[in-house]
Amino acid sequence: MEQKLEFRIATEQDLGQIVAMLADDILGSKRERYEQPLPESYLKAFQAIKDDPNNELVVAVDGNKVIGVQQITFTPYITHQGGWRATIEGVRTSSSVRSKGVGTKLIKWAIQRAKERGCHLIQLTTDKKRDDALRFYKHLGFQATHEGLKMKL
Amino acid sequence: MEQKLEFRIATEQDLGQIVAMLADDILGSKRERYEQPLPESYLKAFQAIKDDPNNELVVAVDGNKVIGVQQITFTPYITHQGGWRATIEGVRTSSSVRSKGVGTKLIKWAIQRAKERGCHLIQLTTDKKRDDALRFYKHLGFQATHEGLKMKL
Repeated sequence: MEQKLEFRIATEQDLGQIVAMLADDILGSKRERYEQPLPESYLKAFQAIKDDPNNELVVAVDGNKVIGVQQITFTPYITHQGGWRATIEGVRTSSSVRSKGVGTKLIKWAIQRAKERGCHLIQLTTDKKRDDALRFYKHLGFQATHEGLKMKL
Repeated sequence: MEQKLEFRIATEQDLGQIVAMLADDILGSKRERYEQPLPESYLKAFQAIKDDPNNELVVAVDGNKVIGVQQITFTPYITHQGGWRATIEGVRTSSSVRSKGVGTKLIKWAIQRAKERGCHLIQLTTDKKRDDALRFYKHLGFQATHEGLKMKL
């Protein structure tokens, strides 16, 4: 697998495999709808991401198989002397390759991309119920300095 | 003050007062540079925010005086069936009006705006050192379900 692993911007053809991965997850299973044809809302979101130069949906692929996904958002802020930040969201790897380093390579790819885009900071939030994820991100050098607050609308 | 309080998108003329507010803060004082003329990086970030339909820099004004600021970012995600989220960042109120409800009105304005934009979730991170801020956001209905992880680049 290692030799064929490739990272690239997702195409619409990848979307079914992406949603399948998001749904194959203890938290994701409750909130995603993996059906054929895919619910229209996924296609609309994909198009909005594709049309936005400050959003990138990135997949890790092994041949034709999507085995990892993450979204990176680049945001200009006034804070930190007008510094840009990268935010990572929706990181998942296929259960078939879990613990094989794909997640690590995916996040390292995001860090490199954030540097290329001139970001001074890369950030993400992870559900406090995901102990493994928290350990994973800390191991990669992230610091849990902030509380991540959410409100459903 | 209450009768004149108004919320609107920031203009370049507000930028000096915004940076002064960001710098007048225990954490902000270490990382901002409030000088005249303003460092170019602030102007560039302001322009990037203004040019991006998914970013809004919002000020609370009392007459000509800027007494509050926040940035709202609207992001389309594949997760949650392709749902949009609003992220609030860089929330500050002027020390002259602290504890007078301006912060509450600012956040409520962001919540309303997020609903108008069709977001299913509004989120933010707050430094774990800011006990008061954490209490403030929880009181407004935010839940601290996530860890906020950051890495300097």
